[in-house]
Amino acid sequence: MDKDLRTLRDRLAEISDLNRAAGVLGWDQRVTMPPRGAEARAEMLATLGRIAHDAFIEPEVGFLLERLRPLEDVLPYDSDEAALIRVTRRDWIKSRRVPTELRVEMTRAAALGHAAWVDTRARSDFASFLPYLRTNVDLKRRYVECFEEADSPYTPLLDDYEPGMTTAEVSEVFGVLGPALAEIVRDAEPVHASFLNGSFPIDRQRAFADRVLTTLGFEDGTWRLDPTVHPFCTSFSNRDVRLTTRYRDDDLESVWSTLHEAGHGLYAHGIADGLQRTSLGGAPSLGLNESQSRTWENLVGRSEPFWTHWYPDLRRTFPEQLGSVELPDFVRAINRAEPGLIRVDADETTYSLHIILRFELEQEIIQGSLKLEDLPEVWNVRTKELLGVDVPDDAHGVLQDVHWSGGGMGYFPTYALGNVISLQIWQVVRDALPDLDAQMAAGELTPLSHWLRENLYSLGRKLTPKETLERLTGSPEIDPEPYLRYLRDKVASLHA
Amino acid sequence: MDKDLRTLRDRLAEISDLNRAAGVLGWDQRVTMPPRGAEARAEMLATLGRIAHDAFIEPEVGFLLERLRPLEDVLPYDSDEAALIRVTRRDWIKSRRVPTELRVEMTRAAALGHAAWVDTRARSDFASFLPYLRTNVDLKRRYVECFEEADSPYTPLLDDYEPGMTTAEVSEVFGVLGPALAEIVRDAEPVHASFLNGSFPIDRQRAFADRVLTTLGFEDGTWRLDPTVHPFCTSFSNRDVRLTTRYRDDDLESVWSTLHEAGHGLYAHGIADGLQRTSLGGAPSLGLNESQSRTWENLVGRSEPFWTHWYPDLRRTFPEQLGSVELPDFVRAINRAEPGLIRVDADETTYSLHIILRFELEQEIIQGSLKLEDLPEVWNVRTKELLGVDVPDDAHGVLQDVHWSGGGMGYFPTYALGNVISLQIWQVVRDALPDLDAQMAAGELTPLSHWLRENLYSLGRKLTPKETLERLTGSPEIDPEPYLRYLRDKVASLHA
Repeated sequence: MDKDLRTLRDRLAEISDLNRAAGVLGWDQRVTMPPRGAEARAEMLATLGRIAHDAFIEPEVGFLLERLRPLEDVLPYDSDEAALIRVTRRDWIKSRRVPTELRVEMTRAAALGHAAWVDTRARSDFASFLPYLRTNVDLKRRYVECFEEADSPYTPLLDDYEPGMTTAEVSEVFGVLGPALAEIVRDAEPVHASFLNGSFPIDRQRAFADRVLTTLGFEDGTWRLDPTVHPFCTSFSNRDVRLTTRYRDDDLESVWSTLHEAGHGLYAHGIADGLQRTSLGGAPSLGLNESQSRTWENLVGRSEPFWTHWYPDLRRTFPEQLGSVELPDFVRAINRAEPGLIRVDADETTYSLHIILRFELEQEIIQGSLKLEDLPEVWNVRTKELLGVDVPDDAHGVLQDVHWSGGGMGYFPTYALGNVISLQIWQVVRDALPDLDAQMAAGELTPLSHWLRENLYSLGRKLTPKETLERLTGSPEIDPEPYLRYLRDKVASLHA
Repeated sequence: MDKDLRTLRDRLAEISDLNRAAGVLGWDQRVTMPPRGAEARAEMLATLGRIAHDAFIEPEVGFLLERLRPLEDVLPYDSDEAALIRVTRRDWIKSRRVPTELRVEMTRAAALGHAAWVDTRARSDFASFLPYLRTNVDLKRRYVECFEEADSPYTPLLDDYEPGMTTAEVSEVFGVLGPALAEIVRDAEPVHASFLNGSFPIDRQRAFADRVLTTLGFEDGTWRLDPTVHPFCTSFSNRDVRLTTRYRDDDLESVWSTLHEAGHGLYAHGIADGLQRTSLGGAPSLGLNESQSRTWENLVGRSEPFWTHWYPDLRRTFPEQLGSVELPDFVRAINRAEPGLIRVDADETTYSLHIILRFELEQEIIQGSLKLEDLPEVWNVRTKELLGVDVPDDAHGVLQDVHWSGGGMGYFPTYALGNVISLQIWQVVRDALPDLDAQMAAGELTPLSHWLRENLYSLGRKLTPKETLERLTGSPEIDPEPYLRYLRDKVASLHA
């Protein structure tokens, strides 16, 4: 049995290495690759993906997992070994459903689609992007067909990012969220925030980000921050974490974009050493992962205690812009609710409305009830309905997000789920760390960081998303009420 | 037969993708990776190397190659297909000699050794580097044992970089080179060059490098230039070429370091599209590859015609340093022969003396006649003998080069061979492009670049190093005379 476990671990380590290598290729593609390297890069990624998939779905892996059942049964449920066997079996059964050739085509189409998106988005040229999108959608449809027992064709896509969750469950949460958010936005009064637009030299934004990042709890020499088109975070071990961000010289959005990715990065950095190079070295779901990026971006990064420490520094950094702005006005401005065009720039309150739009469109695309060539128009009409804003061009509309270019359908809902979950966990954090506000006001973020590492990040994928949530909060249910209460309180306090 | 060829091509494409992916991982490791990512990176590289090696040495590849012999025999010798079958067979026979486990250990030790070198070199701490070096050397000895028929234990190492060349052949060339170079250096008179040391702001060096690089013949969007500790060039296709360089704010060495790597880059960029993702998509040998980095660094980059065009720009870029220096004085200074400590900073004349030192030490290390712990002392004594300079510490001595940290023994001689070959090819170039000096003086470098691409770079590895040299120069022999004549003429002209 020990030998079987070792064999399984070796196989998973090899697959993890291949996936991590693909991660490096992906990071490089988005951060550093010369544009004309895209074609060769797509081939490399397809090859790595194919080899990793083939190595995983082999019958031998299934035999190993069967032979390891007795060991799994005697070990504690949340031991590394039992979890490894259990989670790997679940992954294996799902992976076997997908033919390798389809997987390879999806990988290749994703790499080519991404390159096309960078280019067509810059030119706001949806027509030229359309064929790549069509290829990705066609492949997703074939992918969905591998899971015919699903309650909805959208569920298999969702399940890739939010294991165990159904389309119906998401619809239920969003059914509460949508109207409630619309009401909160309607009630929100304008807040003076014009000082957040102006001149913010990028080198100073970069230096400020570096100063903040060193206080979050990362060990030295384990991370880096680079600029990119569409910010993301990836990691190739818990000691090689790559944050990216986007600087604009006329606003301060990079501050929150960086904190957002740092939240993902802290998750990756916190995964236990013993889970590295296994199938457990990630977050249980993107929703849980996103709950942490949202925690650091919003619950920390827009809070008055955080800025009690950092605002004097920020003000010194940009005296021309902020010299005459007092802390309360700054905090009010960064917490305002104000509908806009761009999801990644959206405030906390309107953000999930952007997601609900995408969730609905994705279901219609996959069901085939929405023609791809009609997408820009439908996008613009619904944006106007939901957010009340006019879309000037596709770069600020349907082409704004990277996800569809890389075949990432089913991904968007996890952002809104993350918002919701972040508040469920934050309530627990508040109870566990009664001095949190004072610590943040003193610039001490490591108590928070360590608590989250110990109680959440270190677990990796050992438990399912619902099991993880239950362990933290006492209930496996996703409950939008704490999030809505938080937003209502905030909007009220802005005008108190 | 067509099917066999397709199967072979598919297999080679997969292996090429794995090797290219490892190349991306290696570039990232040297340019961007956070230091503590080294351990995981070593595992990834080992895994990719193992899979690529296993996929290549399979008996099935041998059977394919046997079945393709009749096709090879009817095709022209230098057709892509005949070359593919012939060269792959040679590679396959050599690769089969090396057990996969040894290959994997070498890859892993190389990645760990490199990380240790970066660290220990910074601290000039040879003692801490020694265990990594020992591991690499032990592995090299085991590697050499796989080739027991070699004329010398050093030849299998050399053959990895300079296929078909024996230690005896190199010794013969170096036997002519060593004394002749020593004599040229002895006769060289001091040249006024103090203006080359001073204040050269790095951002301006970087901008100058960018201006020069855009004129060399690279297509747009196919390359990038990044700073690193030890400059190198790598590529992941002919349209994803990565140059690196090293800037110091007190000299201009980055100019020639950049041109050097650009020479390698132009080679990679020029390899024919039809050879991509095969075993032919590289240079026939490092010596030939190096001949081109030397061509662009020295034969172009230290020539009076080149600087006739570029010196006014350089002077405008650094007016404080160069404002009162005239072109002839600048050209004299950058062509002076002056022994120094650091190989990569060495002038053209003394450079090969650094190589001869390393060639001798490597042979003694592999034979076991030189104990590794004695290496720093021996290094320092021989440096004094050969170059007349005192080594102040190991960072400027035995730890200065990256190669041994990554197990790159047998590599150094190719640098001196490159110097020699560059002049053999340059004579042909001069005949083919009678207006070359006038073109360079007008800033037109693409005629040279295109000629080299068409006549050398595009061939890839289709021919052996000797066949390639013969096709270009009419003779397969490596002949040091043109190189020595060039250096003698240069030294004489400096004092004319």
